[in-house]
Amino acid sequence: MIQITPFLDSKRKTPLYVQLYQYIKEGIESGQLKSDTFLPSIRELALHLRVSKNTVEGAYQQLIAEGYVESIPRVGLKILELEATFLCDKGGKQLQNVTMGEIQREHKSIEFDFVYGEIDTAHLPLKVWKRHVQEVLKGASEELLMYGDPFGDWHLRQELSHYLLQSRGVSCRPEQVVITAGTQHAVSLLCQLLSLHGSTVAFEDPGYNGVRSVFINQGCRIAPIPIEADGLSLSRLHESHANIVYVTPSHQLPCGMILPVHKRSLLLEWAYEHEGYIVEDDYDSEFRYQGQPIPALKALDQNEKVIYLGTFSKSFLPSIRVSYMVLPGELVPLYQQKLANYNQAASQLIQRALYTFIKDGDFQRHIRRMKKVYQSKHHTLLKSVKTYLGDRVTVIGEKSGLHVLLNVPGREDHELIEKAMACGVKVYSTKTFWYNPKNQCSSFIMLGFGKLSEEAIKKGIRRLQQAWF
Amino acid sequence: MIQITPFLDSKRKTPLYVQLYQYIKEGIESGQLKSDTFLPSIRELALHLRVSKNTVEGAYQQLIAEGYVESIPRVGLKILELEATFLCDKGGKQLQNVTMGEIQREHKSIEFDFVYGEIDTAHLPLKVWKRHVQEVLKGASEELLMYGDPFGDWHLRQELSHYLLQSRGVSCRPEQVVITAGTQHAVSLLCQLLSLHGSTVAFEDPGYNGVRSVFINQGCRIAPIPIEADGLSLSRLHESHANIVYVTPSHQLPCGMILPVHKRSLLLEWAYEHEGYIVEDDYDSEFRYQGQPIPALKALDQNEKVIYLGTFSKSFLPSIRVSYMVLPGELVPLYQQKLANYNQAASQLIQRALYTFIKDGDFQRHIRRMKKVYQSKHHTLLKSVKTYLGDRVTVIGEKSGLHVLLNVPGREDHELIEKAMACGVKVYSTKTFWYNPKNQCSSFIMLGFGKLSEEAIKKGIRRLQQAWF
Repeated sequence: MIQITPFLDSKRKTPLYVQLYQYIKEGIESGQLKSDTFLPSIRELALHLRVSKNTVEGAYQQLIAEGYVESIPRVGLKILELEATFLCDKGGKQLQNVTMGEIQREHKSIEFDFVYGEIDTAHLPLKVWKRHVQEVLKGASEELLMYGDPFGDWHLRQELSHYLLQSRGVSCRPEQVVITAGTQHAVSLLCQLLSLHGSTVAFEDPGYNGVRSVFINQGCRIAPIPIEADGLSLSRLHESHANIVYVTPSHQLPCGMILPVHKRSLLLEWAYEHEGYIVEDDYDSEFRYQGQPIPALKALDQNEKVIYLGTFSKSFLPSIRVSYMVLPGELVPLYQQKLANYNQAASQLIQRALYTFIKDGDFQRHIRRMKKVYQSKHHTLLKSVKTYLGDRVTVIGEKSGLHVLLNVPGREDHELIEKAMACGVKVYSTKTFWYNPKNQCSSFIMLGFGKLSEEAIKKGIRRLQQAWF
Repeated sequence: MIQITPFLDSKRKTPLYVQLYQYIKEGIESGQLKSDTFLPSIRELALHLRVSKNTVEGAYQQLIAEGYVESIPRVGLKILELEATFLCDKGGKQLQNVTMGEIQREHKSIEFDFVYGEIDTAHLPLKVWKRHVQEVLKGASEELLMYGDPFGDWHLRQELSHYLLQSRGVSCRPEQVVITAGTQHAVSLLCQLLSLHGSTVAFEDPGYNGVRSVFINQGCRIAPIPIEADGLSLSRLHESHANIVYVTPSHQLPCGMILPVHKRSLLLEWAYEHEGYIVEDDYDSEFRYQGQPIPALKALDQNEKVIYLGTFSKSFLPSIRVSYMVLPGELVPLYQQKLANYNQAASQLIQRALYTFIKDGDFQRHIRRMKKVYQSKHHTLLKSVKTYLGDRVTVIGEKSGLHVLLNVPGREDHELIEKAMACGVKVYSTKTFWYNPKNQCSSFIMLGFGKLSEEAIKKGIRRLQQAWF
């Protein structure tokens, strides 16, 4: 039984029953009152709205007369389905929104989708993860029902500080760790914390547009810093007059190179000289396939000038929406002063399940397994590119992460994408990553391989050969 | 077995084994490497770091010699517990952070805590909620593992649009609904959407400090608008030159009055005249104990100038961290342009469980039950106040919501709070709600009653009589 709560104004000249009729009619037309559901009984609605039964009856009679509802004896008034053409669009404007269903329809003819940002779901330890969620649900203590610590679950922050030291060389106390609802949420909090509106933020170009948008929406000026063969151009950074820089040193997004050690030292020196901050987004550092593990830039930071951002979106599950940042010690009191009455934004249930997931070693086991899975996919991708595309393309950023770039000299991305699409393969432009579209290397194609099987990777790349050459 | 990932620099004069030793020593001292765990074997660590076995052995020997680790034959090197006094504090600064444990210790002597913002947990349909979460987990489809629609789960948004019409009289399409990770997150997104930095925001004074902080941190100027006996002062709003106003018309926070109909109309007229926006925070509208249900301000909005904010924190569970906003149709394209590459910040699992929770009517059943529970508590509170405190106090805002204010004329809140505390009762100042502390009515005391039992409410108020008079 649906409930109806219109605003009825007895001072208006329109009689109450007409106001009620109009209100219900509008609800049916807009689809908010669903067909095949029943209106409340006259008695119930009159009681609920504190109006006379006559008022409700009058409205109902009118609705029956106009065919919006049908009286089913001994049951009530059923809302009838309207002809689609009869539906009016409130405000006359067609609102656009791409739903899941539409996205899927669009992809129907695509056999191999080299999308970036999706992960391998076949090897996810979903059973184990569900067990952790269920355990937390089972034990649900009162503390788990409330808002919780504004910085995030204390146990999770402790586990993260252990994890960060062990896997990323980052030395920090749990007090410095803040749990956020995704990396963009973290960056938005940082903009507020450091009052960045009107400031210049040096930003990799090309770089991660998702974070760049946050800085722009928060009123920052972007100083685009070109990416050289070995990463961020430090000379251009020095020229930028920015005193904050956003970087992805473990795996430049989208180019994929790892910032070499000498540039890391120079970058830190820049921050110390300028009293500036480095925002290090370590988004898929867990997956590195060649050479010795490289600790985070934060691990080298002696003067507490690196703000470290980590996420579970790549390493575990995009949908859990939990990321974290490590604040330099000096920013913790400022955070408490400015932002500590912000409620924690990540679900307590999920935070606590993540805590036991890490504590019991299940997360680490998952990472080890996925590293092998992705390494093998990565190997297959590079091998297939070599076999099928050969010298006609160059691979960029091939040492780590869940994507690579192809450079196809003399060709344009839109043409390559269309030709691939015609053969059932979806590949991607790097266009959105460039701040200045003029600088764009339009011969770059982005291939994400996280969610594709090795078989699909191989077939997809062979299909690209047919499509392109 | 822990993993260790230091940055070892072969170009430094310090030998690699010393670098490794120093790194592990620091980890043990800071507590990040936990006592009673084991270091990796020499072989493993050498392989992991791509250094010689001698390097690792040298570091380990030093750690044994200095008593940081102990060699357990045939098992490995165990990290020993350090004396507490031996622990050094990185950076020399003691970071402060109030943990759950400390909060609980502080409250140990408090028998009756009239805290606001906590809910009745005894009547929560936790079993039902767990079932919904488990069902979603069981069915976990691929789409549930990814980032999901940036606006939020489509099904949940559809259900919310039905729910809003039925319970709040708000007519909107699911396309206008945006799921957010709490109300403060919603306000932060609004500031970015409307580029509010530098703008003047008219804000109830006293008003909800949690949201006021967001506007301030986002660079808005606050124009404090006094609260009159019947809510927001419209004359002062007109004088403010703001063109956006934040209001809590269903239950003014903290004063508790409901904005009367004539003021609602005038407020809308103000918005239409000034081409301004009203941000309506409908935070605990579900709980109203007297008179006919009053639809949201948004329900009267003919010109799409009200931005509606709703939350599950009061009506269901603070810890799930899901709120939502209804954008005027005209702002939807702007949102898509500026913010649509923000990932959704609320957990997909929780969103989907909320969807079935509402769809199956369990949420509505819960609201109906809680309305009775809170109504009864509210009744007990008012009766107890009358019985024990009588004419010496006035109750303010007594028609709805999960708190009331007491005015204790001629007395000061800090004195009242201290005296109550000495008798084991925690009551609260309204200080934080005032933008201009000079305007504060310091004889106001805030009593939240959501989480207290009726017995506790009665005893607590009787205790206040002893404490105060």
